[in-house]
Amino acid sequence: MKVVTTISDVRAITGLAHKAGETVGFVPTMGALHDGHRSLMKAARSECGSVGVSVFVNPTQFGPGEDFDTYPRALAADEAICKAENVDWLFAPPVSEMFPDSARTTVHVSGLTEVLCGLTRPGHFDGVTTVVAKLFLICGSGRAYFGRKDAQQLAVVRQMVKDLNLPIAVIDCPTVREKDGLAMSSRNAGLSANERQAATVIPRALRQVLDQIVAGERSPRAVAKMLTEMLASEPIAQVEYVEVVDADTLTSLICEPVSPLTGNVLLAVAVRFGSVRLIDNASVVIENNGPEVVY
Amino acid sequence: MKVVTTISDVRAITGLAHKAGETVGFVPTMGALHDGHRSLMKAARSECGSVGVSVFVNPTQFGPGEDFDTYPRALAADEAICKAENVDWLFAPPVSEMFPDSARTTVHVSGLTEVLCGLTRPGHFDGVTTVVAKLFLICGSGRAYFGRKDAQQLAVVRQMVKDLNLPIAVIDCPTVREKDGLAMSSRNAGLSANERQAATVIPRALRQVLDQIVAGERSPRAVAKMLTEMLASEPIAQVEYVEVVDADTLTSLICEPVSPLTGNVLLAVAVRFGSVRLIDNASVVIENNGPEVVY
Repeated sequence: MKVVTTISDVRAITGLAHKAGETVGFVPTMGALHDGHRSLMKAARSECGSVGVSVFVNPTQFGPGEDFDTYPRALAADEAICKAENVDWLFAPPVSEMFPDSARTTVHVSGLTEVLCGLTRPGHFDGVTTVVAKLFLICGSGRAYFGRKDAQQLAVVRQMVKDLNLPIAVIDCPTVREKDGLAMSSRNAGLSANERQAATVIPRALRQVLDQIVAGERSPRAVAKMLTEMLASEPIAQVEYVEVVDADTLTSLICEPVSPLTGNVLLAVAVRFGSVRLIDNASVVIENNGPEVVY
Repeated sequence: MKVVTTISDVRAITGLAHKAGETVGFVPTMGALHDGHRSLMKAARSECGSVGVSVFVNPTQFGPGEDFDTYPRALAADEAICKAENVDWLFAPPVSEMFPDSARTTVHVSGLTEVLCGLTRPGHFDGVTTVVAKLFLICGSGRAYFGRKDAQQLAVVRQMVKDLNLPIAVIDCPTVREKDGLAMSSRNAGLSANERQAATVIPRALRQVLDQIVAGERSPRAVAKMLTEMLASEPIAQVEYVEVVDADTLTSLICEPVSPLTGNVLLAVAVRFGSVRLIDNASVVIENNGPEVVY
């Protein structure tokens, strides 16, 4: 596996792959890799001739007071994981390589970025779309793999790719969960034992509400209320948001006019445990032949 | 010459060119082609295997009350010009192909876009960078040709290409002028005979000030004053701005602290004649061995 730190090195590698007629499979990450990331690498490996992973804790997607400084970094371990997953190249650039002082360009997606995490993390998605656009352009055409845990990020990146005509297929992969249901996240490492135990309320709440939908519940407000109450039943959970939205447009289904749940519905939550902010979601496609759950 | 109206058709053409190892040369335009555009096509033709021109009057770069509706359109004549210049493909998409109602993504360059034309045309450069990024991504890697008349556009596009790692070489070509010095522009067609005559004050003023710089004038304020006074000497000229800026960063050289002119200096003006707004510029590189003028 090649480990590179410059844009021109990535270009050289992917340029050769393109010339050889290989599909470039790309997994953008912020490092501190876990089994969720591994599943993305496995998907890329099974579908692409040249598989690359980027490890870059992108400062532009962290706001003031957010956890940029404390975000876990573990490049040596990340390298070992990438090797074990048969990754061909690992791109771990310094900040100055991605964002020199002279940089002045931002990619902005409106609408989708103004809800959910966008409400409490202003500018976050501009940081995401700008760095992802750059990474895509550095890799050239190919397939990029994202986890469904970051459902809003996925929707925003898809919108950007479509709008800017980026020659990239965006592939979404299932959320990977711990045995007790907690969605894997690099941020889980920051939870105390007590917080870690308490955080299981998130998957329990999502599952229970999904069960209610499968059992016939179609009121978006009842669903949101149930989800909020379940999360709040955990004393140390600080609920940041609970939303029921259209999975593609991310428009709220709780706002007026309220209609019975139908189509592709996303339940999305953000909950703080101490200084750690966790997000999770589940989606359910409600069609004539009954709900189909993605969790 | 192929005339196409869809993104997928352009992709097919440039994809084949790339596979054949040809360089794609691209001239983005808003149509109503004139000899300035022809010079860009000629440059592309001399350097590239596959030469394409886009004709798209981009609504997103016009503000409310600007001349989107009256901007000249002449697709049949444009087609003939492209054919005569041996262009391989002409891309003339409808607005819905470039900006479907679902589009929500904008590319923004800060700083460079807030001065000169950016002051009176808010949002204009977001429209430019977004459409140019899309066009570049539709064409894939290659060389893109721009005229120096739109000096700010050129600087902004260069910045975007660098910042987003777009695989495009931006080539700038000299401003092409009428015999009396007026810079060629599709908007010149909107001038009355009287306005057309009056508009020659722009190149005369620029030339005279350049002569003064060559003769030793180094005060940015004296240069700006002279340029303004010359333009104002034409009764029907309404001066929108006169600026003396660093040609790369577009930072004003008139603001405090004022230093003697040195380096790559751009004189830029915007002047209205009736309902027609014209821009023009000249640059001069002032180094130890004396000034070198680009007009």
